Amino acid sequence: MLIVLKPNVTSEEIDHIVEKIKSLRLEPFVSRGVQRTIITIIGDEDVLREQPFEAIAGVESVKPILRPFKLVSRETQPERTVVKVGNVEIGGRKVVIVAGPCAVEGEREVVEHALMVKKAGANLFRAGAYKPRTSPYSFQGFREKGLKFLVKAREETGLPIVTEVIDPRDVALVAEYADMLQIGTRNMQNFNLLTEVGKSGKPVILKRGMSSTINEFLMSAEYILSQGNKNLILCPRGIRTFEDVTRNTLDAGVVPVLKDWTHLPVVADPSHAMGIKDYVPSAAMAYLAAGADGIMVEAHPNPEEAMSDGQQTIDGAALEDLIGKLGRLARAMDRDLL
Amino acid sequence: MLIVLKPNVTSEEIDHIVEKIKSLRLEPFVSRGVQRTIITIIGDEDVLREQPFEAIAGVESVKPILRPFKLVSRETQPERTVVKVGNVEIGGRKVVIVAGPCAVEGEREVVEHALMVKKAGANLFRAGAYKPRTSPYSFQGFREKGLKFLVKAREETGLPIVTEVIDPRDVALVAEYADMLQIGTRNMQNFNLLTEVGKSGKPVILKRGMSSTINEFLMSAEYILSQGNKNLILCPRGIRTFEDVTRNTLDAGVVPVLKDWTHLPVVADPSHAMGIKDYVPSAAMAYLAAGADGIMVEAHPNPEEAMSDGQQTIDGAALEDLIGKLGRLARAMDRDLL
Amino acid sequence: MLIVLKPNVTSEEIDHIVEKIKSLRLEPFVSRGVQRTIITIIGDEDVLREQPFEAIAGVESVKPILRPFKLVSRETQPERTVVKVGNVEIGGRKVVIVAGPCAVEGEREVVEHALMVKKAGANLFRAGAYKPRTSPYSFQGFREKGLKFLVKAREETGLPIVTEVIDPRDVALVAEYADMLQIGTRNMQNFNLLTEVGKSGKPVILKRGMSSTINEFLMSAEYILSQGNKNLILCPRGIRTFEDVTRNTLDAGVVPVLKDWTHLPVVADPSHAMGIKDYVPSAAMAYLAAGADGIMVEAHPNPEEAMSDGQQTIDGAALEDLIGKLGRLARAMDRDLL
Amino acid sequence: MLIVLKPNVTSEEIDHIVEKIKSLRLEPFVSRGVQRTIITIIGDEDVLREQPFEAIAGVESVKPILRPFKLVSRETQPERTVVKVGNVEIGGRKVVIVAGPCAVEGEREVVEHALMVKKAGANLFRAGAYKPRTSPYSFQGFREKGLKFLVKAREETGLPIVTEVIDPRDVALVAEYADMLQIGTRNMQNFNLLTEVGKSGKPVILKRGMSSTINEFLMSAEYILSQGNKNLILCPRGIRTFEDVTRNTLDAGVVPVLKDWTHLPVVADPSHAMGIKDYVPSAAMAYLAAGADGIMVEAHPNPEEAMSDGQQTIDGAALEDLIGKLGRLARAMDRDLL
Repeated sequence: MLIVLKPNVTSEEIDHIVEKIKSLRLEPFVSRGVQRTIITIIGDEDVLREQPFEAIAGVESVKPILRPFKLVSRETQPERTVVKVGNVEIGGRKVVIVAGPCAVEGEREVVEHALMVKKAGANLFRAGAYKPRTSPYSFQGFREKGLKFLVKAREETGLPIVTEVIDPRDVALVAEYADMLQIGTRNMQNFNLLTEVGKSGKPVILKRGMSSTINEFLMSAEYILSQGNKNLILCPRGIRTFEDVTRNTLDAGVVPVLKDWTHLPVVADPSHAMGIKDYVPSAAMAYLAAGADGIMVEAHPNPEEAMSDGQQTIDGAALEDLIGKLGRLARAMDRDLL
Repeated sequence: MLIVLKPNVTSEEIDHIVEKIKSLRLEPFVSRGVQRTIITIIGDEDVLREQPFEAIAGVESVKPILRPFKLVSRETQPERTVVKVGNVEIGGRKVVIVAGPCAVEGEREVVEHALMVKKAGANLFRAGAYKPRTSPYSFQGFREKGLKFLVKAREETGLPIVTEVIDPRDVALVAEYADMLQIGTRNMQNFNLLTEVGKSGKPVILKRGMSSTINEFLMSAEYILSQGNKNLILCPRGIRTFEDVTRNTLDAGVVPVLKDWTHLPVVADPSHAMGIKDYVPSAAMAYLAAGADGIMVEAHPNPEEAMSDGQQTIDGAALEDLIGKLGRLARAMDRDLL
Repeated sequence: MLIVLKPNVTSEEIDHIVEKIKSLRLEPFVSRGVQRTIITIIGDEDVLREQPFEAIAGVESVKPILRPFKLVSRETQPERTVVKVGNVEIGGRKVVIVAGPCAVEGEREVVEHALMVKKAGANLFRAGAYKPRTSPYSFQGFREKGLKFLVKAREETGLPIVTEVIDPRDVALVAEYADMLQIGTRNMQNFNLLTEVGKSGKPVILKRGMSSTINEFLMSAEYILSQGNKNLILCPRGIRTFEDVTRNTLDAGVVPVLKDWTHLPVVADPSHAMGIKDYVPSAAMAYLAAGADGIMVEAHPNPEEAMSDGQQTIDGAALEDLIGKLGRLARAMDRDLL
Repeated sequence: MLIVLKPNVTSEEIDHIVEKIKSLRLEPFVSRGVQRTIITIIGDEDVLREQPFEAIAGVESVKPILRPFKLVSRETQPERTVVKVGNVEIGGRKVVIVAGPCAVEGEREVVEHALMVKKAGANLFRAGAYKPRTSPYSFQGFREKGLKFLVKAREETGLPIVTEVIDPRDVALVAEYADMLQIGTRNMQNFNLLTEVGKSGKPVILKRGMSSTINEFLMSAEYILSQGNKNLILCPRGIRTFEDVTRNTLDAGVVPVLKDWTHLPVVADPSHAMGIKDYVPSAAMAYLAAGADGIMVEAHPNPEEAMSDGQQTIDGAALEDLIGKLGRLARAMDRDLL
C-alpha cells in the first residue's frame, strides 16, 4: 500500500501515521520528494485495507498495490478449474451451451422447452422457478412446483438443470432439485445468499452485477470459494451504461481479464447483454471469440408467448443456427463444442 | 403504450398484432404514416408491460406511456406522507438529521457515539449491527448483540435508532429492537427482503441502489408499500459513474424528481455519495438546497479509529458545525431544523 | 411523435397544443385514456424535433418515433457501401486490417513501422502526425513534416495511409497527403471539422465518441454524408463506463446495431477499447466475431519505446499472430482476409 | 510514481526497468515484499507520465502520485482568482447570475431577452450566435450577425455579454464582440480551440465535457492557462450517466472538489444538467449550496417559442423568483448576490 501525503503535511502528522502503521506490526518506508512525501508499506494488505488512512490528517490519498481477492486468483491456483455439472464438464477445451426460457412456464411447457434446446444442441437446460421481478405486481415464478417440473425436464432429456435461487431461505430446497444454482445479477452482492450457496457445495453460476466492477465481481466469487465451494462459474451478462439502444452494454472485454486473473470458467449470457433477439447471435459470437468457455442463451419455441423476456429470446431454429455458428468459431480457435 | 412498426411491416403482421392486443381485451388504434405505422393502445399498461411485443415480427420498438409505479405516486396520493419514527416526524416542514458511525463498535462505544450526535444536534441515531461487506474476510458486525447495544444508546439519549437489515431471516428480530429499518444500496432490489420489511409495518429508509434508475428505485419502494407499509423514506446516496475522484457521484438532482413524482419523504446520505470527509458538508448542503427533508451523515468521535468508512466520516465538531449551517440554509428556505 | 399529457391537463391546454401542431401544418390525433390523454402526430419528425413541446403547459413527455438520421440509414440505401481507399476495398466480404503506431515518430521510424505492419499482413498503415493530447505539455506531433514521412512510408510499402486530422484549418493540407482521414473520438462532435472532411470528398474513418450514444454517432456520420461524401467508415473504439481495469469498455455489441441500422462499413479499434496490450487480441477477435468489416490496431516494433500509447501497443510478432487468428475466424464466418 | 511488478517478474526484468528509469535521470527505489516487488520513483512526474512503463515485461501496473495539472492548482497559486468580465467580478464573495436564451434569435429578440434578464436581476447576458447542433439539418446560429445583435443588447442593458465559440477560425472575430468566450461541453477537448481562446487573453468560461473526468476538465483548463490567459471560469453542467429521466446528472458534488483543488471561480449551469425546466431552480440551489460562485441559467420570455432548448428554459417570472431564492441562500452562507 502506498500513502501519498499532502504537500503541507507536518512532521508531527508524518510521525503519527508512521506510529499508526507500526502499531499494526507493519514497516513503513518514508520517501521525501520535492512535491510529495509518500509512505510505502509492503505487507498484509488485508490488514491495511481495513484501516481508514484517508481519515488521518495529512493524508492525500491511499493506493492499494494488491488485488483484494485470493482464492479465485491464478496466483493462488495456476491451473484452470473445471466444474462438473451432471456429466458436463465446464472450463475445459470444449465449449458448452446452456439454453432455455427465462421462466418455468408449466410442467408440459418446461419439458417441451428442454426437448427443444436439446434438439438444437445445448448441453444444459436453464429456466427460472423463482423470478426476481422489478414490479411487485409481476408473476414471481412457480417456486417449488417449478423445481419439480424442472426435474421432469431432466428426466425426459438427460440435460442437467440450472435454476436461480434468490433467497437464502430457499438454498437448501433448490439445491435438492437443481444441478447448478444460478445467482442473478441483482443478487451478486447479496452476501448471505452467496455464503449459503457456498455452503451448499453445489455448482454455482454467478452472474456479474449489472454495474459491478471486475474487482467486486471477483470478491463475490471469493465469498463462495471461501465457504469451501470451488464449483464456481463466472457469468458476464452485460453492464449498465449510458447507451440505451440495447438493454445493457455487452461486456465481452471482461472475458480476457477474467481468464487472466482467475482460474474459474467463464460462461457468458448474450441475451441479457443485448436485450434484443436479433442481436443475440452476434453477441454470443463476440463472447466466444473473446475467450468464453460457454454461452448461456434464452430460447423459447415461441418468444412472443414467453412469460418473460420474450423480446430477447430466440426460437428453436435460431438456437440451432447459432450453435452451428458457435461450433465453427470454436473449431477455428482450436476448441470445439461438447 | 405505443407500438412502432418496422418500415417494411406486412399487413398480415399488423393483423396479427391487432388480434393479439384484442385478445388482451384492449383496443388498438392503427395510424399509418408515410415513414412508419404505429399502434396506440390506451388501457391497462400493467397488462401490456408483461407482453413481449418486441418479440413479434414487424415490431420495431415499444414505448410505454405511464410510469410503472402506483402507490408511491402523487397521482395516487397527492398529500405528502409524514413518517413518524419514535417521536420524530420526517417529511414535514422541519428538516431532520440522522447521524452516527458506520458500524456498532461495542456497547460503551455506541453509547458514546449516540451522546456525541445528540449533543451536535442530530434527531436520530444510526449505526449498523449487520454489515454487508464486499470482502468475506471483513468484520460483518455484532449482529443481535449490536442491536442490544443500540437499545442501550436509545435509553441513554432518547434518540430513535435506525439500523440496517440485510437478510429476510433477520427482519423480525431487527424490527423488535430498531425504530427504523434501513435497506442498503446493495439490497435495493432484494425483493424478498423488501417484502419482509413491508410486512413488518416498521418505518423503513430505502437507499437508492448505486446504479439504479429512478424508476427502479420507485418500483422497489412500491414493493414495500404494496405490503401495506406506508412508513417509507427514500434515501439518495450517490450513484456510480465514470468519475472516480469521489466514491460515488452526488445525486442531488434526483431530489426534485422524487418530490415531484412521489408523496414520500426524502432523507439523503452525503457521506456515501462523496466518500471523502472534507466534501461531505458541501454535499449535505446541496441535498438540502435541492429539497431534501433530511440528511443522514456518518459521524464518529475519531474517524481514523472508525471500524469502517472512516475516510468519509466527520467528527463531532464537524457535525455540529454542519448542523448549524444546515439550520441557516433551512431557514433561508422557509423550513427549519426540528 | 407522441405527446403524453399530464393527468391534470386542462382542455384549454390541449387546445393550445393542438393549435400549435396545426400551425406547423401537421395533423394531431388526440386519444383520451383513463389515466392519460395522448396526442399522436405522424409527419415530418424533423420539423417536430425542433419544437420544444416539453416547454408547453400540460405536457408530461414527448416520445419520438423515428430515428433522427437519414442518409446513413439502410432505409435510405439498402445496399451496403464499400469504401475504396487506394486500392483497398472496405465493407465487402473481405476483412481489412489497419495497423501502425499511435504517432509518426520520425522519417526512418515511420518507414520501418510501415514495413513491419505490411510484413505482418496489414492492408493499410495508420500513424498520427497531429496528436490531440490531454496535456498541453505533451508532444503534439510532427504535423506537416509527419505527413511527408507518411508519404515516404506509402512509397516504400504501397500501403494506403490513414492519419488523423484535428483542426478544420488543416483538412485541406492533410487531404493532400493522406488516403483516408481519421476523426478521433474527442472530435466526433466537432461539427465544423466533420463538415470540412465531408467537403473534402476523401475517405473518412469516424471514431465513436468515448461517451456518445449510437444515435449521436450516426448523427455525426450524417454530417459527413450530408456534404455529399459517402466514403465513410464507422469505428467503434470502446466507451467510457464505471469499469476502470480496462482503459475503456469494449463496445463489440454496437457492431450488429450499426450493421443493421446503416449501410456503412465498420472497422473497429480494439487497442483503445482495452488499453492493455495483452487483451487487445481477444478484443479484436470479439469485434470481428460480432460482425466488423475490419480491425484497426496499434502496433510498434518496440512498444516500450513508443512515443505514445505504448501500454496498448502490440509488437510485430503479436500482430502477425493476431492477423493469423483473425483470418481463421473470418473464414469460419464465410469471410476472409483481403 | 509507483510501478507494481508482476509476481513472477525476473531479476533481469527488474534490472531493465531500473536502467530505463535511470536513463531518464531519475532515481528508482526497489522494495521487495512477499507478494509483490514495487519500484517507487519520486521526481518529475511529467517525464514519467510520457513513458509507457506498462508496456515493459514484468510490469503489472503503474500508479501516478501527483495530479497531472499545475497552473490551475492551488498548490501553484493558493489565493483565489477573481475574473473581471466588463465591470463584473466573478469568484469573490458575491455570487453572479448569468442568464439568457440558448440562441440569439434576432436583433429585436436579443435586446428584449437581455432586458428581461436584467430586470430579473442577472449580472451577465448569455446567448449563442454559433450553435453546435447534433443534427446537420438544425439551425446553426446567426454567426457574425448574431454577434452584432449581442453588442446591441449590451448597449441597451449595460450587461456584459457571453457567447460560445466553436471553431478556432472564429476566435479572433468572436473575441472582438464578446466580453467572455464560452467553450461548450462538446469542445472541452478541442485542444486547438482551447489554445486559441487561451491566446486571445479574453475571459473564458469552460464547460465540463459531458463525460469528462475532473482531471480531464482541469487539464483542459491547463491548456488555456498555459497560453498565459488566467481569466478562466470553470462551468459544471451535468454529466452523462445511466439515468435518463433528466437530460444529464447534476454534478453538484464536483463543486467542492474544484474549489479545493484549484484557484479558479466556478459558475455552474443547472439548465443543461437537468434538461427539464421545473427542476432547474432546485438544481441551481444545489450548485450554489455546494459552493459555486455563480449560476448560468437559460431563460426566455416564452420558452415554448424558444429556438432551441425550450424544454429546459425558464421564463422571466421564474428567473426573478429563482434569483430571489439564490439571494436568500447566498446570505445564509455569508455571501450575497452582486
